[in-house]
Amino acid sequence: MSKIKLKDVAEKAGVSKSTVSQFINKRYEFMGKDTREKIEKIIEELGYQPNEVARSLKIKKTHTIGVIVANILHPFSTYFSRGVEDYCQQHGYNVILCNADNDPFKEQSYIKMLQMKQADGIIIASTGKNNDLIMKEIERGFPIVLFDRHFKDFEADTVLSDNYQGAFEVVEHLIHQGHRKIGLVIPEGQLLSMRKLRIQGYYDALKKHDIPVEDAFIKFVSKHTALLQLDSLCNGKNKPTAIFTINDLVTIEVLNYLKQNKIKIPEDLAMVAFDDLPMASLLEPPLTVVAQPNYEMGTAAATLLVNRIESKNIGNYVKKVIPCKLIIRESCGLDHSKEQETASNA
Amino acid sequence: MSKIKLKDVAEKAGVSKSTVSQFINKRYEFMGKDTREKIEKIIEELGYQPNEVARSLKIKKTHTIGVIVANILHPFSTYFSRGVEDYCQQHGYNVILCNADNDPFKEQSYIKMLQMKQADGIIIASTGKNNDLIMKEIERGFPIVLFDRHFKDFEADTVLSDNYQGAFEVVEHLIHQGHRKIGLVIPEGQLLSMRKLRIQGYYDALKKHDIPVEDAFIKFVSKHTALLQLDSLCNGKNKPTAIFTINDLVTIEVLNYLKQNKIKIPEDLAMVAFDDLPMASLLEPPLTVVAQPNYEMGTAAATLLVNRIESKNIGNYVKKVIPCKLIIRESCGLDHSKEQETASNA
Repeated sequence: MSKIKLKDVAEKAGVSKSTVSQFINKRYEFMGKDTREKIEKIIEELGYQPNEVARSLKIKKTHTIGVIVANILHPFSTYFSRGVEDYCQQHGYNVILCNADNDPFKEQSYIKMLQMKQADGIIIASTGKNNDLIMKEIERGFPIVLFDRHFKDFEADTVLSDNYQGAFEVVEHLIHQGHRKIGLVIPEGQLLSMRKLRIQGYYDALKKHDIPVEDAFIKFVSKHTALLQLDSLCNGKNKPTAIFTINDLVTIEVLNYLKQNKIKIPEDLAMVAFDDLPMASLLEPPLTVVAQPNYEMGTAAATLLVNRIESKNIGNYVKKVIPCKLIIRESCGLDHSKEQETASNA
Repeated sequence: MSKIKLKDVAEKAGVSKSTVSQFINKRYEFMGKDTREKIEKIIEELGYQPNEVARSLKIKKTHTIGVIVANILHPFSTYFSRGVEDYCQQHGYNVILCNADNDPFKEQSYIKMLQMKQADGIIIASTGKNNDLIMKEIERGFPIVLFDRHFKDFEADTVLSDNYQGAFEVVEHLIHQGHRKIGLVIPEGQLLSMRKLRIQGYYDALKKHDIPVEDAFIKFVSKHTALLQLDSLCNGKNKPTAIFTINDLVTIEVLNYLKQNKIKIPEDLAMVAFDDLPMASLLEPPLTVVAQPNYEMGTAAATLLVNRIESKNIGNYVKKVIPCKLIIRESCGLDHSKEQETASNA
């Protein structure tokens, strides 16, 4: 049995191929109600699969791709997007940026909008709540590249930073500076894959150096609970001599708390952070951090997506993990003369 | 003579209205060469104006708007976009963000892309180099709202912060603190409208207090020239006791320079800045700034655009100017106990 084509639907319904295409793409502006109903009926009768159309349309590339970020206010998102943009501009693609705000409903709405607007592909920091939809689209050949977060339930082109290695190294750096009581500050909310890996890096660095984990040193904080949680961390009988903050939002909460409570870094408390904030080197003292390769992740994701769009291949998905970089400044007790940048995995 | 309609073209060419619509929108995938040529000929014969179609299509709103920002790496752009996004989400619109990077070619390409993708309207920080295109689009009824920059050569809905008032107030604040030698640091490059207004605010504040302008205190700096320019500003015989930086990029250059050269704020040099950087309050000392109402500007621009889209009116353009806010911290010599936030125009 030969495959039913758009042409067959058009012939049987007695309308033009254009009209059927309009129907498939839900453009009903210039179509009578009767035409619409007739096409609908014929498609059902013939068992026509509109995917065929989607594929035909895809050959006609629009040279536009979409990027769905978790939160546009994060420097991670903007530097990543900038990396995507620069690569795409060099390769003749426009970039549409959408801010899903970690909201599964917004995310779904933006995925659908980008497809309706015939984007050639999507780069997405998935919330994980629309994975069925994403998986289905990948399987039917629509190019999607994930970044920042990865999921075990399906295969896809993915670009990540080495969250585990970054966290491990920065915590080991604290241990090498003589710290054995190391607090861990985690944002409240969903434990996304990258956060789990950073926490694992902390655990394993302590384990390697035979330092027992103390539950009281691990705090989940939000804007609302920061004061309470940090008070209990910094004012207990048994308190840490150093803190590791695992993302920029909690880093800012901790810096605010320490400033307001006149707790001096590093004299009273050493501190290291995941993510290099744009002004981290201007703080007093400058903050030692693990920097993610934000911009490089953006260009890597764009490279994978454009390859996927232009090759039209399905399968053989690539998972690219880019090392993080330990940037030693002064917030863990090193004096200024020893300031240095250490590339990890060098 | 009655106006030629799409229907007339379809009838005369013996094709469906759908097919003509496909033709107008340059979707030729399912259209034979002969059909295409026939429609082309009939359109010419009848003198049919495809704008009519554009207008008909516009009635069918896509509930998507585009925002073209100057540089996604600026917190001003991201907080503004966030304001647009939050308003639009509440009103059922999706937001597409594009980063024109102050590049007129990218800007033009994004304007055209957004129209091809049938955005209902555009919010744009115009480079000023595509004003002919923007003006033409506004005149034919396509909703566009400008922000951040304004132009004297045409009328449009525009949202600005009060750059003049903000600069005037922060410089006058320095004068009230006893400073009479006040440096001005300006980014190299195009003197956009908002920068001119900030410079005018500086001039007028000095003038009001009978302080002569010293050309040697006014420096244009870029990443490459910062060291040279700031050396000449800070190490001359006659040097300022305070500096006003007029945007976040030069603020960061100056902070870097002062830190590297161990020039203490405010003891050696007082400092105030235009734009409240996300970490300005965490610096030592916390930085006194004029904050732009970024987020409010975003919601104001979105409000104007959505009104324009939904009313379909042309003309009576609104120019909305929102006051800036002086945030007094410690970098101009106030001691901590006097820290306060002063709302301007209160």
